[in-house]
Formats: sequence, structure tokens, C-alpha cells
Amino acid sequence: MRIVAADTGGALLDEEYNPIGLIATAAVLVERPYRTATMSVVRYGNPFDYDMSGRQAVREEAFLAVELAREVKPDVIHLDSTIGGIEVRKLDEPTIDALTITDRGKEVWKDLAKDLQPLAKKFWEETGIEIVAIGKSSVPVRIAEIYSGLYTAKWAIDYARDHGKAIVGLPRYMKVEIRPGKIYGESLDPREGGLFGEIGAETEGIGWELYPNPLVRRFMVLEVWRE
Amino acid sequence: MRIVAADTGGALLDEEYNPIGLIATAAVLVERPYRTATMSVVRYGNPFDYDMSGRQAVREEAFLAVELAREVKPDVIHLDSTIGGIEVRKLDEPTIDALTITDRGKEVWKDLAKDLQPLAKKFWEETGIEIVAIGKSSVPVRIAEIYSGLYTAKWAIDYARDHGKAIVGLPRYMKVEIRPGKIYGESLDPREGGLFGEIGAETEGIGWELYPNPLVRRFMVLEVWRE
Amino acid sequence: MRIVAADTGGALLDEEYNPIGLIATAAVLVERPYRTATMSVVRYGNPFDYDMSGRQAVREEAFLAVELAREVKPDVIHLDSTIGGIEVRKLDEPTIDALTITDRGKEVWKDLAKDLQPLAKKFWEETGIEIVAIGKSSVPVRIAEIYSGLYTAKWAIDYARDHGKAIVGLPRYMKVEIRPGKIYGESLDPREGGLFGEIGAETEGIGWELYPNPLVRRFMVLEVWRE
Repeated sequence: MRIVAADTGGALLDEEYNPIGLIATAAVLVERPYRTATMSVVRYGNPFDYDMSGRQAVREEAFLAVELAREVKPDVIHLDSTIGGIEVRKLDEPTIDALTITDRGKEVWKDLAKDLQPLAKKFWEETGIEIVAIGKSSVPVRIAEIYSGLYTAKWAIDYARDHGKAIVGLPRYMKVEIRPGKIYGESLDPREGGLFGEIGAETEGIGWELYPNPLVRRFMVLEVWRE
Repeated sequence: MRIVAADTGGALLDEEYNPIGLIATAAVLVERPYRTATMSVVRYGNPFDYDMSGRQAVREEAFLAVELAREVKPDVIHLDSTIGGIEVRKLDEPTIDALTITDRGKEVWKDLAKDLQPLAKKFWEETGIEIVAIGKSSVPVRIAEIYSGLYTAKWAIDYARDHGKAIVGLPRYMKVEIRPGKIYGESLDPREGGLFGEIGAETEGIGWELYPNPLVRRFMVLEVWRE
Repeated sequence: MRIVAADTGGALLDEEYNPIGLIATAAVLVERPYRTATMSVVRYGNPFDYDMSGRQAVREEAFLAVELAREVKPDVIHLDSTIGGIEVRKLDEPTIDALTITDRGKEVWKDLAKDLQPLAKKFWEETGIEIVAIGKSSVPVRIAEIYSGLYTAKWAIDYARDHGKAIVGLPRYMKVEIRPGKIYGESLDPREGGLFGEIGAETEGIGWELYPNPLVRRFMVLEVWRE
């Protein structure tokens, strides 16, 4: 099975570890044995001007996933959303009302569906590929989350080159290592069966430290500075 | 403390990782230091004709646990059930109605209790051994789950010998390794403190691969084939 | 950031692993990189005469944390409580009523606040240091929990010297090792990013064994005896 998934993660933090905004939306192609991505793309957000409602993230993820899927023609697209494996092209108002989610969640999805339902329907008509809102159960979505952490580290390196230093929060229980010419990352949850990722990056002249975020258990902080 | 526990797990999957039916009910004897079984027995289900309601599983588990307990005379029997440590021999209708579980759960247990309450009462009168519905809190129940995964791997090997290939899903966050003459397995959750198991098996001429189930995070898929 | 946190944990168990009472309240000073304590203090409870309602624990934790904080002047104090990061000095009745916790929890906090709100207000007026009820999200609270497990092991050694033997339950998913002259402990959850601790202890002539509590998954039992 060949799956494209997308997720958003990684946050710019201030000196007291308060989140300022999210950094990276990553889309990945995941193939058997489903432990890493065979391809990945990123779209960076502007953490200084970020809509934290979550709506911006899902929309970005859907559009970026479709962009990658046009190229690699997967069997299916997975989105990180809690609405239980439903096909996005079928999300009309009565269907959303029938979902067992909060009223707030229904409002969000009615708004989101205005863009995403036509996108999914058109893409399915053209390619036969479904976009499913499978959420946290999907391993490719978790791999996309790990890649959003890798690209967050890359963003931090670039930011530190310009501004001297960056403090970012990685997605849940993952770590990264900045190595010569690349950034490696992996899940810290062994129950996931060994999920990891790697991207190329210009890493010379950069110092870094990784440690637990004292205010948010199971999340790591990455500090990066110009040496 | 010497504890007998039983659990059912392991599923035959189709090529798209959809579950077809459950494979193995295992009962185990667990003794200090409570990390593995000192004895185990299995009853295989027919995954092609399986009642997925869960009722079949609990009944099988109770009867298999009692069978093993008659032989090894433990201090107590643990069943995997969410009704909070209650003794099964006390499960009459008013007691079930007073449980803080869903109405659906009460109906299931009223039905189950028809067989299991007399079984537990008779076994307790004969031996003084209680059967308690302790559920996920029990380490022996988790060890039984790991053994159901080991026997699932054994079933997959036999199935692959006959049909060329088998794809099975293991119980939650555990792995197996097919080694010469045996199958080894362990929990992938280090918080459990190192739970593992091993059973003998004819493993020659068998190839295998273990990888994350892309559709169900924290569950592994085992593919086995005739070489 | 320099954080003082406190937590209570570790229980004396009987031979059937039933808890008799809690053993140790630990307060810790945690500094970057937030993986262990740079200082710790303990107050032992009397497990044979313990109020299991949880009220005794929170009160002890607050007073012990303030005692340590007077000495080390941290930026903030973290308490293990589920009321979501609120400053304890602001806990008057209307504020407690507005919390999204159970009615039972509100009663407990109205009672607790009688002592703790004046304590927090006075400490804040004198030092500018806030006491926040941040709960499980705090890494320093988790480190305090690990230290309560270390001091529980120390208590068990002393108890075994006097009475021949002790059986104690450690806080959730952590292990300890009794080494010459010290006790080492660490979290068994790798998602926490490598939290650990160490205290000095007279360990000669002591035997020990650590194993999973068969009745409470993800909790370890420590047995200690005089050799």
C-alpha cells in the first residue's frame, strides 16, 4: 500500500517555552514497511502570524497532500483529523451533522468542507484516489508529524543563521539529531515500532541542544545557535 | 502469588490489513517475578467464522483458564474484562445492574453470566479459587495477550505451509521473532517492565517480516511465507 | 528556568500487594536541561497511619516545596494537581467554583485552599514566586515523583534493617537500582526524554529484587531484605 499523509507540527517558542506559532506542514509518501517516508515535501508557516484554531493547519495539510499525491499517485491520502476515517469528498452538511463529534467540531468542519470537499471530490474524479480523515490511528500521519519536526529543526537552523538563535518545540515524543549535512529524527515511543525520518540540511557552524520541555511532559525542546 | 490468566488476540488480515477474524485464545500460568508464563495453553479460533462481538472471546477465555487452573491450582484466575475486579461467581442480575458500565455492557454480561457465573461458582466450591474480572490492570492478562500473539505467529506459520502465505495482526504493541525451533515475543511498552514469552514451533523453511500496521498505530503486522 | 516541584509516591505493600499507605513526599529543584534534580528533600509519611484521600499529600507537598523554595529561590513552584495551571494564591471560593473539575474536587480544594491559599499568597508577597497547580503536564513534578520513588527505596532499606524485609510499590513506570552507597532510578517511559535521579544511601548488607506488580500494570514492586 502506498499512502500520502500530511501533518503540521513544531512551534517557535519564547524564552519561557510559550508557543508563538506553528512552523511546518509536511506531506509524506509512505510505503511498506511503513517506518519512514520515501518522499517528503514541506510548506512553512509564519509562526509570528499564526491562526492557532487548527483550521489553517488542516486546510494546508489537505492542499499539500494533494499536491504530493498528484506527483506520486498513492492508493489513498490520510489526513490528521478526528472524524473517524470518513472520505472527505462525502462531507456534506447532513453527513457532518451525523458525525459523533462536538458541536464546535461540526462548525469547524462545515467551514473546512467548503474548500476541502470540492478539492477531494475533484481529485477523486480525476484520479480515483480517496482522501480519508483517519487521524491519529494512521502510521503515515505520525510519520508526517515526525517530518514536520525534522523540517522544524531545519527552519530553526535557518532562523539561527539569521538571528543568532532559535528555540523550537518538537511534535509529541520525538527527538532529532543534527548531523553533518542532515537532520535525523525518530519517535520516542517504541510502541510505534521504530518510526523515523531524515532530511538533508546545511548544518555547518550550528550548535544545538535537545531537552525535555519542562512545562509539557513528553515534548522536547530544540535550541539551535550560530557558533 | 500464582495466577492463571487468559486473553484472546491476533487477527487474520486481508491484503489491505482489514481484520477477518481472531485467531488465538491463550491461558497462562504466571508466577513471580511476573514477567513471563511458566506454562501456557492455546485454543485456536476459526478466523473465517468469527463472532466479533467479543462474547465468544470472554467465554472461551474463562473455560480455557479454568481448564489450565484445574491442572496447576493457582491462587486466583484473572479474566480480561472491564468490570473492575469483581468475582465472577457473584455476578447475578442485581450485581450486574449495579456495575458502572454501559447498558450494552450489562446486556452482554447478563448473557455471559448465564454460563460463566455457574462455572465460577462450581470451580470456587470445588477448589476455593476465585475468577476475577480484573481486565487491563492485570499483568498476567497482558502476558496472556502476548502469548495469544505468539500462538498467532505459530498459526500463521502452519497456515503459510498449507496456503503459501499468511498476514496476521499481532496484539497491541508487541513484536515477535521467528527463531530456529521457537517463536519469541515481547511487549514494545517498556513501562510494563520487560514482559516477554516464548513457545516452541517448527520454523524451518519459513520466511517472515514484521512491520507497523499502517492503519492502526502501535499494532504490528506479521507476514509469513513458505520459502 | 529554575523550578521547584513536589510530589508524593511509593507505597508500603502487604504480601498480596495491597497498598497499606504512602511513604515519601519529595521536593526537588530542577534546572535546565530538566532531566533530573539538582537538589532534593524528603518528608516521610507514616504508611501505617495514612489518610488515603489525597488531601494530606497535596498539603505536605505544598509546605515542603515552599520550604525548599525559601532556600533555593526558584522562578516558580509546581504542584501536582489537576486544576490546570492556576496560581494557588488566587484560589478563593468563586475561583474554585468556576474550575471545570468535579464537585468532589471542588470540596477538596475549598478545604485545601484554607491552608494553601494564605501560604501561597504570603510566599508570593515575600518573594514574588508563584505556586502553580500545573499537575501531570510538568516535568519537574514527574522528577519529584521519581525522587519520591528513590526515597521510598531508601525507606524500605531502613525498614528492612529493622524488620528483616520490606515490600514497596514504586510510583508509575519507574525503576530503581540499589548500588553501593546510592540508589539510582529512572523513568521507564522513553517518551519523557530520559528522566532520572540518584540519592545517597547506606546500602551494605541489603538484598533486593524489582519486578512488575502483577495487579497493577506499569507499576513496579521493590522487595528489600537484610542479608
